[in-house]
Amino acid sequence: MQEKNGFVLRGNICYSDGSKKLVICPKSYVVCQEGICRGVYQELPKEYESYIVKDMGDALIIPGLVDLHTHAPQYAFRGLGMDLELLDWLNTHTFPEEMKYADADYAKKAYTMFVEDLKKSAVTRAVIFATLHIEGTKILMDLLEASGLDTYVGKVSMDRNALEGLQEENAEAAAKAVRQWLLETEGRYEHTKPILTPRFIPSCSDALMAELKSIQEKTGLPLQSHLSENPGEIQWVQELCPNSSSYSDAYYQAGLFGGDCPTIMAHCVWLKEEEISLIKKQGVFIAHCPQSNTNLSSGIAPVRRFLDEGLSVGLGSDVAGGYSTSVLRAMADTIQCSKLRWRLVDAKQKPVTLEEAFYMGTAGGGAFFGKVGSFLEGYEFDAVVFDDSELLHPQELSVRERLERLIYLADDRQIKSKFVKGNLIYEKNEKNS
Amino acid sequence: MQEKNGFVLRGNICYSDGSKKLVICPKSYVVCQEGICRGVYQELPKEYESYIVKDMGDALIIPGLVDLHTHAPQYAFRGLGMDLELLDWLNTHTFPEEMKYADADYAKKAYTMFVEDLKKSAVTRAVIFATLHIEGTKILMDLLEASGLDTYVGKVSMDRNALEGLQEENAEAAAKAVRQWLLETEGRYEHTKPILTPRFIPSCSDALMAELKSIQEKTGLPLQSHLSENPGEIQWVQELCPNSSSYSDAYYQAGLFGGDCPTIMAHCVWLKEEEISLIKKQGVFIAHCPQSNTNLSSGIAPVRRFLDEGLSVGLGSDVAGGYSTSVLRAMADTIQCSKLRWRLVDAKQKPVTLEEAFYMGTAGGGAFFGKVGSFLEGYEFDAVVFDDSELLHPQELSVRERLERLIYLADDRQIKSKFVKGNLIYEKNEKNS
Repeated sequence: MQEKNGFVLRGNICYSDGSKKLVICPKSYVVCQEGICRGVYQELPKEYESYIVKDMGDALIIPGLVDLHTHAPQYAFRGLGMDLELLDWLNTHTFPEEMKYADADYAKKAYTMFVEDLKKSAVTRAVIFATLHIEGTKILMDLLEASGLDTYVGKVSMDRNALEGLQEENAEAAAKAVRQWLLETEGRYEHTKPILTPRFIPSCSDALMAELKSIQEKTGLPLQSHLSENPGEIQWVQELCPNSSSYSDAYYQAGLFGGDCPTIMAHCVWLKEEEISLIKKQGVFIAHCPQSNTNLSSGIAPVRRFLDEGLSVGLGSDVAGGYSTSVLRAMADTIQCSKLRWRLVDAKQKPVTLEEAFYMGTAGGGAFFGKVGSFLEGYEFDAVVFDDSELLHPQELSVRERLERLIYLADDRQIKSKFVKGNLIYEKNEKNS
Repeated sequence: MQEKNGFVLRGNICYSDGSKKLVICPKSYVVCQEGICRGVYQELPKEYESYIVKDMGDALIIPGLVDLHTHAPQYAFRGLGMDLELLDWLNTHTFPEEMKYADADYAKKAYTMFVEDLKKSAVTRAVIFATLHIEGTKILMDLLEASGLDTYVGKVSMDRNALEGLQEENAEAAAKAVRQWLLETEGRYEHTKPILTPRFIPSCSDALMAELKSIQEKTGLPLQSHLSENPGEIQWVQELCPNSSSYSDAYYQAGLFGGDCPTIMAHCVWLKEEEISLIKKQGVFIAHCPQSNTNLSSGIAPVRRFLDEGLSVGLGSDVAGGYSTSVLRAMADTIQCSKLRWRLVDAKQKPVTLEEAFYMGTAGGGAFFGKVGSFLEGYEFDAVVFDDSELLHPQELSVRERLERLIYLADDRQIKSKFVKGNLIYEKNEKNS
């Protein structure tokens, strides 16, 4: 549902203006005009007086959250099998589960659960790995489109080092599958966009990377993958790509490392200095996934470095390396992990602040989608309304304090409604409370 | 409510038999006889055939969880003000909040929220700091007694280095207050026990420690305090106690470090080797508080060492250094932090396993209360029944897998009912769901 011209939400409004500044506007108005934010006001300007004002009472209103890295087929085993490091975890838990998505019925059942969860969450935008299966990926895209969420979805490409039955026969077959998937989904969706998705270097032959480069040259599609998550993985990449100077360079040499086409690399835990420079030069987005990096014993990415360098950083739940789908939780995890890194690894890199974590989970990741993740004038209107009245407290709290508490304490019970590009896509009622 | 002779719960039963072994009994019976567990059976033995069998269907039944370290007055500001290290955090956030508990009305309002939360949680036993206020502490004890939870509560003792208005005038006044509190609460409770609570060395003069020792000699009361949480704190203790060889030794020299009287020390992040030996020799319980140690940038305690040394270790939420009251969450945090410690600090200390974390959150901490925290024959009957049907999944899961998921994903919505010493103290209904 979208009001013809526009509408106004009234409540306690919080948003980022850059990574250092959190703007807090108690009892204010945020204006949506044809899906675009027209600013936040203490008094509603005359020009918007004809707009319907939806009074959210004492609720908090924040920009929709952005999950820059998650795996839809892994939702099924979130919170399970967390006793292994990345490469063993892939072979033991992940690949066997992903094989099931060859079955369209299973895919529909499992993806329905994932999308329902995402819909009830505070996320309005997500960048998602599916599996290599075309049919399953289309089912996921259909469900996402129906949800009203705005997403990128990738049919995974992988032609080596996986399991029998979960890898494409060769580079040509893999490329053909991508082309078929793009053809079959072309023009089908309004809010669901394709993204090229080589799983990671160990799963993709040089020939497959060359095919994807060729597809990207023709389509201009964005790309997502994994980078520098685990020491064992990094060493393997060095063996697989002996002519590359780093993991990043392996993507760069394939022509698939940012530049003209928007690119997300998840993790970036163990980057060399030269890789940070390359990421900056190529404008690659980093999806920071602190919970996953903890669960798989990968380490803690130097987010302070990334922020100080001015890199583009958003947050990823990385389900099911991460067990939580919540990007609020990803903000809390980001702060917590940065504190441990400061204490245990490098006291020169100060912990991430609340302002910075909030920025990364909203406008930081949102930048991958355009002007998304803030209530600054001109941003697409994604908003989440929180009723925190059940998070009891005996003392008075400021709006800033209430926002901090939400980040640490809220779950989907506190989410009252959610808007994507001005459309109301979720509203809590007794049934789904 | 307690059945006259006994009763039986039927469901999927999970409990620890030592720190390495998780016993999983699908569709089995656990017998409670006059508050004591009489074992778990696949078929109900004839001798218990007259007992009422409460069929919990497909629910999971686990021993009640034990929170070995938490601060009731800090519940008010959980999830707030997490930008500081311990000593600044105490002065900026904690002490000002604790001062409010001089007001009995405020104490009642705030403690009611805390106790309601604890009642709806999976915790059946807790060891709790109040404040230094006698009246407020009695209000907390009254509320806890009415809840049916089984707890230790400490009126805090502190006579130096706090804020004007939040420290006792001198050691004699502090000791007098403890004696008055003990006198006024003597014989008043069945499930709520007093515990001596010197806040920590920096807050307690040598004279106050001597007074508490004298009280302990007369009463035999147990004791709780904080130990080796933060490097700045440890250095301060060394300055305050120049004749002690370590933080532990400062308590030991005061005669308040285990031995005959059960003692809990929270944190133990930065212990010297000699302190680990002393803890072992004196049988001191360690309350491991991973979330708090992360939030206050304290570090990660070497839990693997503690377990391998055979020390007594339980888990603490340490609200509000920790923002979550959940001991399931403390189990997950324990595993996660141990993985980061393995990766970043000491690869010789393997991560904590699910079995070990579950043990610490049940029988490990439960040992402070006696035979508590397991369904082995002879243990006090504390049980929590979980309905995990709303944690959707498309595939079949074993009971072991469902338990793992609960640890990572459950919140109080999954808690169906809770028993303490055979008494049903909480049952979910539509109103409190």
